[in-house]
Amino acid sequence: MSRVAGVDLGGTNITAVLLNGDDEIVDRERRKTPEGGPEAVVAQIVKAVAKLDKEPRAIGVGAPGPIRDGVVMTAPNLVGWQEPFDLAGALRDALDLPVGVDNDATVGALGEWTAGAGRGASCLLGAWIGTGVGGGLVLDGRPYRGAFGGAGEFGHMIVHRGGALCGCGRRGCVEAYAGRAALEGAAVTAAQAGRPTAMLEIQERLGKRRMTSAVWATALEEGDALARRLFGDAIDALGCGLSAVINLLDLDTVVLGGGLAEKLGEDFVEAVAEATRPRVLTGADERRFLLAELGDDAGAIGAAALAREALG
Amino acid sequence: MSRVAGVDLGGTNITAVLLNGDDEIVDRERRKTPEGGPEAVVAQIVKAVAKLDKEPRAIGVGAPGPIRDGVVMTAPNLVGWQEPFDLAGALRDALDLPVGVDNDATVGALGEWTAGAGRGASCLLGAWIGTGVGGGLVLDGRPYRGAFGGAGEFGHMIVHRGGALCGCGRRGCVEAYAGRAALEGAAVTAAQAGRPTAMLEIQERLGKRRMTSAVWATALEEGDALARRLFGDAIDALGCGLSAVINLLDLDTVVLGGGLAEKLGEDFVEAVAEATRPRVLTGADERRFLLAELGDDAGAIGAAALAREALG
Repeated sequence: MSRVAGVDLGGTNITAVLLNGDDEIVDRERRKTPEGGPEAVVAQIVKAVAKLDKEPRAIGVGAPGPIRDGVVMTAPNLVGWQEPFDLAGALRDALDLPVGVDNDATVGALGEWTAGAGRGASCLLGAWIGTGVGGGLVLDGRPYRGAFGGAGEFGHMIVHRGGALCGCGRRGCVEAYAGRAALEGAAVTAAQAGRPTAMLEIQERLGKRRMTSAVWATALEEGDALARRLFGDAIDALGCGLSAVINLLDLDTVVLGGGLAEKLGEDFVEAVAEATRPRVLTGADERRFLLAELGDDAGAIGAAALAREALG
Repeated sequence: MSRVAGVDLGGTNITAVLLNGDDEIVDRERRKTPEGGPEAVVAQIVKAVAKLDKEPRAIGVGAPGPIRDGVVMTAPNLVGWQEPFDLAGALRDALDLPVGVDNDATVGALGEWTAGAGRGASCLLGAWIGTGVGGGLVLDGRPYRGAFGGAGEFGHMIVHRGGALCGCGRRGCVEAYAGRAALEGAAVTAAQAGRPTAMLEIQERLGKRRMTSAVWATALEEGDALARRLFGDAIDALGCGLSAVINLLDLDTVVLGGGLAEKLGEDFVEAVAEATRPRVLTGADERRFLLAELGDDAGAIGAAALAREALG
């Protein structure tokens, strides 16, 4: 296989990696994400790619927000990026290389599928449990984007109609129970209402401004009752959502990643699998539930897989 | 295109149709489904196909129950059919023709996609609202079966965890609110508990042994309060389930069929679309919600599409 580059475009950093023909990372460049809008981001990506050890044959980019045919429709996490922008086209013009651009959640799934925990899967969901809850799909051995490029919104599947308010303004989404932001909101509300918990104290002790994954991990380890209750509810909501995906799509593999999943590790994966299996209609035992392996590199490695796709 | 046959294998009847190269039905045979088990069913299908006006180049069969690679795993609706049986293999041996076999819900979606309401769709769910709730998927312009052949179980996606008990033994599935059997159970329970309703009287007036789709249609037309409340709840559950499917798969088309949908018609489709759209994350207006067009023929026509697939 050819040498390709993968670029992970995040709200804070741009990471570019160079992969050799064996899908090994042979070079890596990191830059701050500029705040001057799309053109500045394109210039920064071009600079990062130019600094790589060798010239790639194609590049792929994982970018935040919904993407259609290489056009980033909205990117609320990128400063100065208000209008739809043809990122693939602009990079193609600037680099004169084949370019693939896709949503970061899809790209993450693609990374775990090609070079991580999901290798060899036929039908896979990558579920990312972090501040929010996202997802990416590989179906019948191909990345799946949907009719308009917006597929994979696992976090906004409703599992409890009329339930908890979600950041998206709807009620009962998976993210409203299992996203770190939602968990933090519920914990703070409960603590302020006088529910006994050491969570705020743990947060202070660890010197965190937010209730990070590390705060949750510590609180669960110390047996904090509120943390356990909220977290049990999160696991249950994930189990409902994943069983819905499996009953609909008959997946063979679920890869769990994102800050919360990676901090809590295999115990988290096992708890989610246990909440899912009794709700799966057939062949519950045949599904694999796996912890993501690539960590922060999933995006860049998945983007490199996009580059291979763009090469054809 | 070639002449092919499609066979709809149901619990009561076997229907075989012959399609010409323009996908028009040019002949049709109907037989009682025999109760002597798989071999008797194979013999009956062979007889029905032999009676068709001309010999087809390939045949397809839509059969109940989960199917893997042409093997019917279980078929609780077929008498004497307890063990997995290689229906595709047996028919190939008996007819010496290419044979495709798939689940009836998938085949129904395939029928509506190739020759019915869903023509031209890229990503489609066929949702069948009858005694139970089923589904079939076409994704990226190809029938989608999942890793083990069991995809499409829309009716068993959980939309209300801890909610109503479903026939599958779990709680909160779409089917537990929107299947005709579940609706009947809830109506009878409410009537017996003294809730004012004319539903049982309407059922008697129409001379029905069960609370059929016609009974529901009449009760809704006459403004029966219990029927309206239960039916509103069914529509709401369908809206939650469909929005979950759309957010996950970014479909462009939903086709609604099955006894209840077809009896209630366009009003039903519009009500379901209205319950779904506000819960769709992006591009709600781009999705088409359509009433199935093929009625009882969807299975046989979809099976003929399987035959074309088997021809390659």
